[in-house]
Amino acid sequence: MKELERIKKQILRQLIKKPSTFWELINYQDSHITAFLQAIRELIDENLVEYKKPFFRITDNVNAFPYKDSGCLLCSPFSKDSYWKEILDKFLEIVKDRPLPTSDFDQGFIRPEDTLKRTAFIYERGDLEDTEIFILGDDDLISLSMALTGLPKRIVVVEIDKRINKFIKEKTQEIGYTNLEIYNYNVINDLPEELKKKFDVFVTDPVETQKGLKLFINRCISALKGEGSVGYMGFTHREASLEKWYNFEKFLIESGFVITDILRDFTTYPEEENQWEDFYRTYRIMKEFDLELPNVDWYKSCFIRFEVVEGPKILNIPLPKNIEELYFDDEAWATPLPSFLEKNKE
Amino acid sequence: MKELERIKKQILRQLIKKPSTFWELINYQDSHITAFLQAIRELIDENLVEYKKPFFRITDNVNAFPYKDSGCLLCSPFSKDSYWKEILDKFLEIVKDRPLPTSDFDQGFIRPEDTLKRTAFIYERGDLEDTEIFILGDDDLISLSMALTGLPKRIVVVEIDKRINKFIKEKTQEIGYTNLEIYNYNVINDLPEELKKKFDVFVTDPVETQKGLKLFINRCISALKGEGSVGYMGFTHREASLEKWYNFEKFLIESGFVITDILRDFTTYPEEENQWEDFYRTYRIMKEFDLELPNVDWYKSCFIRFEVVEGPKILNIPLPKNIEELYFDDEAWATPLPSFLEKNKE
Repeated sequence: MKELERIKKQILRQLIKKPSTFWELINYQDSHITAFLQAIRELIDENLVEYKKPFFRITDNVNAFPYKDSGCLLCSPFSKDSYWKEILDKFLEIVKDRPLPTSDFDQGFIRPEDTLKRTAFIYERGDLEDTEIFILGDDDLISLSMALTGLPKRIVVVEIDKRINKFIKEKTQEIGYTNLEIYNYNVINDLPEELKKKFDVFVTDPVETQKGLKLFINRCISALKGEGSVGYMGFTHREASLEKWYNFEKFLIESGFVITDILRDFTTYPEEENQWEDFYRTYRIMKEFDLELPNVDWYKSCFIRFEVVEGPKILNIPLPKNIEELYFDDEAWATPLPSFLEKNKE
Repeated sequence: MKELERIKKQILRQLIKKPSTFWELINYQDSHITAFLQAIRELIDENLVEYKKPFFRITDNVNAFPYKDSGCLLCSPFSKDSYWKEILDKFLEIVKDRPLPTSDFDQGFIRPEDTLKRTAFIYERGDLEDTEIFILGDDDLISLSMALTGLPKRIVVVEIDKRINKFIKEKTQEIGYTNLEIYNYNVINDLPEELKKKFDVFVTDPVETQKGLKLFINRCISALKGEGSVGYMGFTHREASLEKWYNFEKFLIESGFVITDILRDFTTYPEEENQWEDFYRTYRIMKEFDLELPNVDWYKSCFIRFEVVEGPKILNIPLPKNIEELYFDDEAWATPLPSFLEKNKE
């Protein structure tokens, strides 16, 4: 989706609520003044908007979904508009019998409200409505939170864990959202050809090893259409040093992305719901200090948005030689040892 | 300031409030697990912290300023701890008779509460206490909001507008903060030698022309000590396209910085207080559409933090040939024409 299309959506969904001045309207979109102006001019040319000084208003030709304020996503999400609160309630109900993490895939999910916060942030940016969305790895079940809005044109989930794929499939049918597809997919393999260059947006929560991280993102990049396409990812400080962030940002820039948002510690991994007490004995962190199991949630991740300005290019990157290199490097101090590796080590 | 020193400060100011477990404590600092562990170990070696499983606690040797929660800086700043509310009240009082913007320097200030929000965010990151802070351009008067906390070791303001310099000087004396110095300084000139490589942190709100932007940041970079030093800046979407952001982020990465935070539309420029109605007639935006003057605040900027990972390097950049090139490029659609240029054009 080109930047301009996104801006037009942000304008229309606001104008359908009420006629607005130029200055009111500019506060509800993300772009530079010139792109904003161009978007307005095109909307007027297309007979979707009219201008009677000082107000812009929609014409009868518009059939947009009115803007739903998601509230302050940092401290009081979904407090403004019952629309989001209702989706949250449904989502909480749906995820109740979700599959629990297995150490075999370095899993662990964020709080369901944080998953919806991500979806809401994507919505705020104009990246949810009528877009084609690619999700690599979905133990957070963000696909289902998106399906509940009914807003995306298409959602494709590629995921290695068949339990999760089965779960998403069943729940999507319950929801009645028909534009969701699921692929059993291992990130080690190239993306199926039919998924390449097909998406406006990707979302992923990559492993954070130097090699695994870039591999995840490269697979996602190959799914994007081109200029104006957007990536979203979770990324921690807990297991990724600033040197790793630096190296990764360099990679993003070289791939043709501008980073537009970095939301520090936006999401939390709940200890209790993940039921991963048993994993801790394999964490490197537990061997370095005489520690008890966590008494509070402590594993958090940032949420990052980046947008294609040029290309994107698919850079050549060194691939992990095996599963161990995919999951572990010097900085993976709170990553569980997969059971099949544990057996090897016994 | 090295990353580790900052992490230690974040730990101590929390521990002085109450003994905490490893997992509680990790939530109040910004670093990777390994740096966090190293910081704790050093604090134990230095006899500042002791560990009696499961709690870490300070020893009698610690004399730190307890952590003051600044609240949700996006929607309800200073609502948690009266410390920040009191500083806000004092700051609002102080800025009442501030100098108003002149078009000669492309000025315009953010809301006083937003200035303090920036200071609070800098504090949250551990970049305020006991640091040496360099401020290039200060019509926002952030130096005074910092002086009110009394926390920085040293603040240096370099600013071209003598009215502002006089104002800051007077108010600093009223506040009774003695470690603030002010230089009359034009960004076109090299930084005075005695200011080079002396600071842990810089803060600036640069002009946003391609050339001016990098010039501002380069001057600031030359003031930084080295690895672990930090930059903060305001940057808009209103007058800077994503291409410009991309180009600038590339510049930051090449200079040796990792971008750690991008807070979208964190600050607002209040129309009424700036009293710049008269400027509008010279804005390019007003010539492109038949617009009335703003009925709401609409000019916002993001707040960005970046930290030196390598170097930093001072890159060779093309300098603006004259004042016009410093203030204007294709994207400067809401920048007032300085009166001396206006006269030239008549």
